[in-house]
Order: sequence, then C-alpha cells, then structure tokens
Amino acid sequence: MFRPDDCVGEFVHEGSGLTLGLPHMGFRQAVAAGAKTLVLGVASAGGVLTDELIADAEAALNAGLDIASGLHGRLRDIPKLADLAKSNGCKLIDVRDPVMDLKVGTGVRRAGRRLLTVGTDCSVGKMVATLCIERAMQARGHVADFRATGQTGIMIAGAGVPVDAVIADFISGAIEQLAPERTDDGWDLIEGQGSLFHPSFAGVSMGLLHGAQPSAIVICHEPTRQHMRGLPHYSMPSLERTIAANLEQARLTSPDVVAVGVAVNTSMLEQDEARALCEEIAETTGLPCVDPYAQGADPIIDRIEQCFAISRPSMSLSA
Amino acid sequence: MFRPDDCVGEFVHEGSGLTLGLPHMGFRQAVAAGAKTLVLGVASAGGVLTDELIADAEAALNAGLDIASGLHGRLRDIPKLADLAKSNGCKLIDVRDPVMDLKVGTGVRRAGRRLLTVGTDCSVGKMVATLCIERAMQARGHVADFRATGQTGIMIAGAGVPVDAVIADFISGAIEQLAPERTDDGWDLIEGQGSLFHPSFAGVSMGLLHGAQPSAIVICHEPTRQHMRGLPHYSMPSLERTIAANLEQARLTSPDVVAVGVAVNTSMLEQDEARALCEEIAETTGLPCVDPYAQGADPIIDRIEQCFAISRPSMSLSA
Repeated sequence: MFRPDDCVGEFVHEGSGLTLGLPHMGFRQAVAAGAKTLVLGVASAGGVLTDELIADAEAALNAGLDIASGLHGRLRDIPKLADLAKSNGCKLIDVRDPVMDLKVGTGVRRAGRRLLTVGTDCSVGKMVATLCIERAMQARGHVADFRATGQTGIMIAGAGVPVDAVIADFISGAIEQLAPERTDDGWDLIEGQGSLFHPSFAGVSMGLLHGAQPSAIVICHEPTRQHMRGLPHYSMPSLERTIAANLEQARLTSPDVVAVGVAVNTSMLEQDEARALCEEIAETTGLPCVDPYAQGADPIIDRIEQCFAISRPSMSLSA
Repeated sequence: MFRPDDCVGEFVHEGSGLTLGLPHMGFRQAVAAGAKTLVLGVASAGGVLTDELIADAEAALNAGLDIASGLHGRLRDIPKLADLAKSNGCKLIDVRDPVMDLKVGTGVRRAGRRLLTVGTDCSVGKMVATLCIERAMQARGHVADFRATGQTGIMIAGAGVPVDAVIADFISGAIEQLAPERTDDGWDLIEGQGSLFHPSFAGVSMGLLHGAQPSAIVICHEPTRQHMRGLPHYSMPSLERTIAANLEQARLTSPDVVAVGVAVNTSMLEQDEARALCEEIAETTGLPCVDPYAQGADPIIDRIEQCFAISRPSMSLSA
C-alpha cells in the first residue's frame, strides 16, 4: 500500500478476501519475478506463529526466499525453519527483535517537534494515518519522518522499534531513542499503538505517549467498531473522552501538547456517510476530521501549520 | 526484614549504612553457618550488574554459594560467573526471568477480592506496605496472600512475576495470571510498581493496575521525597491527585474499586512528626493513614472490613 515499488507480488490463501492489489503468485514464480523475501503480513492475537504460517514459511524457504516476520513467536525458534534456512542459505528475519541497546526513559524535555497518533482502540488506522500525514507534509515541502513502532510499520520504514515487544521497563525509553532530540525544524511522526482504554495494552500506549513527548496528537478512530478489539465485554470510549485522556496523560512529559486532528478509517462506510460523519466529528470536537487515506490529510496539516505558526515551504511553487 | 528465619547472615561492604540487622559475615563463614545462596539485594537503575557485584558473586561462588539476582542484567550472561558456577557445581538464579507462559490480558471480570498498592512514586514502600497488610490481615484470621511483582518481593515470597521484566504486550496479562480468579473468600494482596506519574515507568504501573482488577487500592507515599525518583526535573504529584488518577484508571477493569488507606513511609521523620503527618493526611483524604511498618496496618484493615462488610474471623478469640 505504501511501498508498492518494493514488492513484486502477493501470496494469498484461497478464500482470503484480503489483497494489496499486487499480482498473485506462488513462491517459485515470485523468485523468478525477482522476489528475495517473503513478508508474513499477518498479526495474530498474542503474535503466535500458527502451523499454517510455518507451512507457508517452509514452502517459501524451499523456493529460496528469505522470511521476515513481525510476530512475537520467533522464526528462529522453530527448529524445522531454522534447519531449512541454514541448508538453503536463506535468512530468517524476526522484525520484533528490538535492535537497540535500550535505556530507561528520563522524560527530559528534548528539542524538536513530534506528532503521535493515538486511538480509541487498537487497529483503527494509526499506522496508515501516520504514513498519510508524512506523505501530505512532505508534499508541502515540510521535513517529516515516519517513526515506526510496530512490526508492519518497521517493515515499511525499514527501521523502528517494536514497542510492544520491548521489556516493560523500557517502553518510554525506547521511544525516546526512536525519536531523539531534533534541531532541523523537521517533524518526527510517531506511529501510535493500542489505546489508553484497551485493558490488554493500555500500559504500552501510556509508555509510548510519555516517551513520545508529543507536540501534537492526532486521534484515530474506526466508527463501525462495536467493542474494544477482541473484547466483546468492553465498549468503545467516545472520541471526546479519548482526546481528553490522551492530552491529560501526554501533559506529564509535554505540557503544551495540542490535538490537531481526528483521522477516521471510513473503509466500512459509503462515501456520503463518511463525509457526513467527518463533518459531524469536526463540529463536536472542534478539530479537522478526515479519512486521511481516502480523502488526504490536508486539513490536519493546515491545523498543524496554524498551531505551530509554520509556513508552507512549497507554497510559492504550488500557488 | 520479612523472612529473617530464612537467612543466616548478611554480607555488607565497608562504609554501607544499610543493614537487615542480621549477623555480618564473609562468604566462607556464611557457608559454615549453613548458608546455601547469596541473594544480591541491590537494585540499580536500569538493573545493571556492576563490576563490584560481579566480583562479590565470584567470591561467593568460590565459597560454594549459589547466587540469586533480581537485576535485568543476567548472571548467566557473564561468562566468568557461568564458568565458575559450572566448575563449582553452584546455581545462578535470575529471579527476573518471567517463569510463566505469558498471555495477553483480557480484562474479563474475575471472582475474588484483590488489593493493590499504588504510589506517588517508585520506591516509596509499596512492597513493605503490602507485606504489612498481609501480616495484619492474617493476624485477624483473614485469608490473605502477598503476590509479588518485583525481584525483592519474589525472593521474599518465593514466587511471583517480575512485571517490569515481561514483554510490554503482556503486562496486564501477567498480573491476571499472578492473581487469577479466587473463590475462597481470601484476598490477593498485589505488590504495586512505579507510579502513574513517573515518566520512565508509568506504562508498567498502568498495565499492572488494569491487570490487577483491584477491589481496593492503598496509596503509598514517602513524604520527604523532593522529586520523582531519579528525575530532579519532575515534581511529586499530590496524594489527592494520585488517589484520583489511580481510581479513574482502575475503573476501566474494576468499576467498583475503592481506596482504603494511605501508607506513609516515615522512616525519615521523627515519631511525633510522623504521627502528626498521618493525622493530617487522614483528615484531608478521608482515608486511614499509617506507617504500616512502624505503626501496624490495623486502621487500614478496619476500613477494608467496613467497605467489604467482612467480619473479623478471629474476633471471638481475641476479645
């Protein structure tokens, strides 16, 4: 979706409705087309390597592909994959291994502007929103860099920290290292994770928020979600409550933090419905509200330029 | 302090003012007195195994002692310790290795009563307060069990989960496993960690709070602390703010949670000062306030019995 030029095709099991819009191909066909690596594009709860995924990985190794996985379960811990990789001269790449020498967070105020996406829930589009904001800011000539915190984001960016896989003591410290002091007027756009309202993962979201020291937050939301992801016994928080709670917690390390927009994932709505909903949310929250993937992130970038009194570097070119 | 019968003596470097009140002895003398294990009773920021600790561990291994450590840095990762232990037939026990097969938290409401200690800061006496509450509840005939979440607590209890050392995704799940459903009318007394107001560790505190699903919380405080531990640039939150924030966050998984007391570490105060301070805090917060180590935890147990309408099983014996 965001790095199509890096991909030659996709491997999909029969019956799966998911697609990246890439040519479907088997592993040997992919190798012939120039593929080097099979990326396991799957996130299971608990990050388990299922038997089906292991079988796919075996087949890909036999075709000569390297394997990249972002799951908690490590490829190298599956003896038959480790053996196959060795005998075929292929690499097993466990993206969720934190590669940094982690330090405990300090909360010391650091220079630079950082934007963090937060959410009403997990899997509401924080990574996509962050990438769309990067694209829109860069299109206006701003210096802005996506900072990945999840396995998919890391595979897209080629770097980052898998924050849900670090040792608990180092959550905020890992984010301080991911987005350190910056003095070039550029923005770090940090991919959020989880939700302060998700009973399974709120600790990660909290540490990420404190470590990010955000100047600005964007709140992400999936309007058709009936309950917190995976937890039918937990209802969704309102957008207003989500905004207030995130601002309050963020102020611990970033007293002047502001909310600059709401990013709605409208993929489950009709276009008219989507536009009406965004207008309604903009009205009730006082924030620009868009589906950044379907409609672009420009209203959010406008608000960032206003709030931080920054000019649009490319305006003279585009006017 | 809490398990003196399990210890034969202490090894203290010259100039250290700390003591457990046990006989001072060297390692060979300790072995002669029946000691089996050297417990490294030290917590460094970041949990680093310092050169001095490694030298002590070497000397103890040479005397034939096993070594137990609760630091992030693992004994087994120091080659000379691993080699020495092997050649001397001694064990290296890394307490901070989570021993459970961890699961992601679910937030499903579970039976049983749980009390969690929370704090204005790190290292304000949460473990000690929890152990004192256990002792006072048991003295009244209640069934109550200390549940350890830190390396020292685990060494005292002989079991527990080192919550700051688990993978971030599993913080709340680890606590759900540490204190599962309970239907015997007994209490799980869960040792808290960190503080919602500590920029380094608030994620751990948040996940612990959600996983604990506490019926009751006790707020712990060290009144002479000038700033958040290790962070001169962060001031301490007020007790009122700490109580409100913890109750608010706890309600996500435990809507009926109540605060039942304030535990103050008065070790740095004169006795008169300590009593006056506790009275003042009791007045402003409306909660019983004691130094549970110096004064006993009875006023807090009284409040627990009132709030949960539980009778004092041993009352007929003690009256």
